[in-house]
Amino acid sequence: MFKDLFDNVKKKHPLIHNITNYVTVHDCANILIACGAAPIMADEAEEVEEIIAICHGLNINIGTLCRRTISSMLIAGKRANALGRPVVLDPVGVGASQLRMDTALQLLEEVKFTVIKGNISEIKALASGSGTTRGVDANLADRITEGNLDQVVAFAKAFAEETRSVIAITSAIDVVSDGKTAYCIHNGHPMMESYTGAGCQLSALVTAFVAANPDRPPEATAAAVATMGLAGEIAHARLSEKEGNASYSNYTVDAIYNMTPGDLKKGAKHEVR
Amino acid sequence: MFKDLFDNVKKKHPLIHNITNYVTVHDCANILIACGAAPIMADEAEEVEEIIAICHGLNINIGTLCRRTISSMLIAGKRANALGRPVVLDPVGVGASQLRMDTALQLLEEVKFTVIKGNISEIKALASGSGTTRGVDANLADRITEGNLDQVVAFAKAFAEETRSVIAITSAIDVVSDGKTAYCIHNGHPMMESYTGAGCQLSALVTAFVAANPDRPPEATAAAVATMGLAGEIAHARLSEKEGNASYSNYTVDAIYNMTPGDLKKGAKHEVR
Amino acid sequence: MFKDLFDNVKKKHPLIHNITNYVTVHDCANILIACGAAPIMADEAEEVEEIIAICHGLNINIGTLCRRTISSMLIAGKRANALGRPVVLDPVGVGASQLRMDTALQLLEEVKFTVIKGNISEIKALASGSGTTRGVDANLADRITEGNLDQVVAFAKAFAEETRSVIAITSAIDVVSDGKTAYCIHNGHPMMESYTGAGCQLSALVTAFVAANPDRPPEATAAAVATMGLAGEIAHARLSEKEGNASYSNYTVDAIYNMTPGDLKKGAKHEVR
Repeated sequence: MFKDLFDNVKKKHPLIHNITNYVTVHDCANILIACGAAPIMADEAEEVEEIIAICHGLNINIGTLCRRTISSMLIAGKRANALGRPVVLDPVGVGASQLRMDTALQLLEEVKFTVIKGNISEIKALASGSGTTRGVDANLADRITEGNLDQVVAFAKAFAEETRSVIAITSAIDVVSDGKTAYCIHNGHPMMESYTGAGCQLSALVTAFVAANPDRPPEATAAAVATMGLAGEIAHARLSEKEGNASYSNYTVDAIYNMTPGDLKKGAKHEVR
Repeated sequence: MFKDLFDNVKKKHPLIHNITNYVTVHDCANILIACGAAPIMADEAEEVEEIIAICHGLNINIGTLCRRTISSMLIAGKRANALGRPVVLDPVGVGASQLRMDTALQLLEEVKFTVIKGNISEIKALASGSGTTRGVDANLADRITEGNLDQVVAFAKAFAEETRSVIAITSAIDVVSDGKTAYCIHNGHPMMESYTGAGCQLSALVTAFVAANPDRPPEATAAAVATMGLAGEIAHARLSEKEGNASYSNYTVDAIYNMTPGDLKKGAKHEVR
Repeated sequence: MFKDLFDNVKKKHPLIHNITNYVTVHDCANILIACGAAPIMADEAEEVEEIIAICHGLNINIGTLCRRTISSMLIAGKRANALGRPVVLDPVGVGASQLRMDTALQLLEEVKFTVIKGNISEIKALASGSGTTRGVDANLADRITEGNLDQVVAFAKAFAEETRSVIAITSAIDVVSDGKTAYCIHNGHPMMESYTGAGCQLSALVTAFVAANPDRPPEATAAAVATMGLAGEIAHARLSEKEGNASYSNYTVDAIYNMTPGDLKKGAKHEVR
């Protein structure tokens, strides 16, 4: 299944509109090219409606948020909805400030997101901030393990139902759900936390996968998550003694550049719950 | 010829003022240092007149355009003209939005550019948008090949005459013309399209070359284009099996860092039409 | 001594709030993770008070300055002072424009900096701009050598007393002083000037070290300077023939990722004057 989804990215070369932070933007562009997609970065309110119109998907990331681009996110998101383009939200550091939380909540209210992707802390904060208390278990740990996986799956399903978005939660194990099915992905490597931007890169990748597979958002999201995780494993296997997080970051992009859909099929480790 | 032009960059260490996008800015800075020049990035209207005054050239790039920096581009460009500093325009994605087209056209109207550098699609869009219909062949393909090279050369010459700028068009073959002479450059590698920023890097490099060779803009531009293309070839030759676009991007900068003017002389493949 | 200071960074994992330029921000984030700290980048006025409140230190860097973030720097700096968090200033290119000088002087007036870190030209310009003429020797060269080291040490001590900040001046030899003691650090490699951002990375690193060692700012700053210099040496030793400044930049971060406090103890070359 993941193979076909990745094949579609390579066949369709989706063009992805990114409104994202200035820290990891370069890596987001390179990972999109690496997977077979293409990036456009444009965040000025005046032009975002035109840009999304020529693109196949929109990736909104709230890191290094500023007032100027919040309007752009809202305008682009609404236009993407009107045009039927998939939209992905990465609520980076949503629990760290009221501005980020307010922005994320306003985005959730005014834009229909195809996928919301964050780490477990961010998704918990977002669920809690959105007042969907049923879905949030205050006791949920900040790390997904085999021990609490069923609990996280239940949380992901509930939050997906409430938002009517695919929810992708990253941690040692990643969970992707559309409310009915949950994909638990066991790919990845702890060193992915040692460089800036693995999360942002994944959101870009998810946007490419859902743009190339518009009828299958949950599966496409799961495939993108597995692709990123597998790239992290391949990159780690390539590291030699003197290499550290800067080399590792490059190797992750390299791994996606060289990964075939067949490699993904062989390397993906996932289960459905 | 290219050897002397590159020698001058290494001797004069031109300081280049860049008003550019936040996606590829880091690579632009590093490629300027790699070639022997030095970068300053400054885009706030209040300071750009002072910054260009201490620099030897100005590089204006309209990627990730925003209202705030459009004024800065105009102010800096006019001041550079008044001071006799060369100015380079990279009309990134000029066909993608009205804001980019309007900005490029306003820049062309208010600032005299030494060089306008873009890929074939961008330069076609710009020529078409500027209403210089004589110069534009609507049938011009989006790729320069041996088959349409004469047609592109004619287009480049016509657009150079109309703008009184050196026109540099990049593709599989690159064409540089000041209206009279056209340099066709056969360096480069297809993998240069596999990472973000090769075009932006080239514009920075062109600015360094024209700043160090103020009396010879067309030759200096051609030399910069050949330097970038040769770097792309050298970087590709260095790639091993597991390496992809992230490594390739770094190797391109490395190649320029290690390239001597003598290497450029040996490696440059160009003809005059 | 340096060993303990670095041990504390690794033990405490300080979270560092960065308001910095968009050129080298990615490398600042990665070097913070590499040393054992963690980065947050946030520059919107509305959120910076909340962000610094959850962080252990603040790094202010005036490269690619814009009006919007000047307010954010002032707000964040004052709040950091009120909360007792260390604040580091990197006055990038302070001599290049009135905007940068005015901003740096306003910051010095309204915010108490734990450390001011710049190259010799920047610190001279700042001292001169701040009117502390006693401390400034107009004859001070733009390069620190054995020949003028005593003169630079005297200057650093005087400027440290006047600002009541630790002053860190980088060059071939680096000088760190709190007004009483001066650490002269003989680590580093000339190639550190061949890529963009070594200075910005060092400021981020200094912030991590002073945040983890709040009672010993001068020693922590000296340790961070030695760490960066040693990383530059290790990175250079690793370079092979075809590699240039892009690879070198990555290897510097890699070197810090792999450096243990024991390695720092063995490799640091410093003396007290």
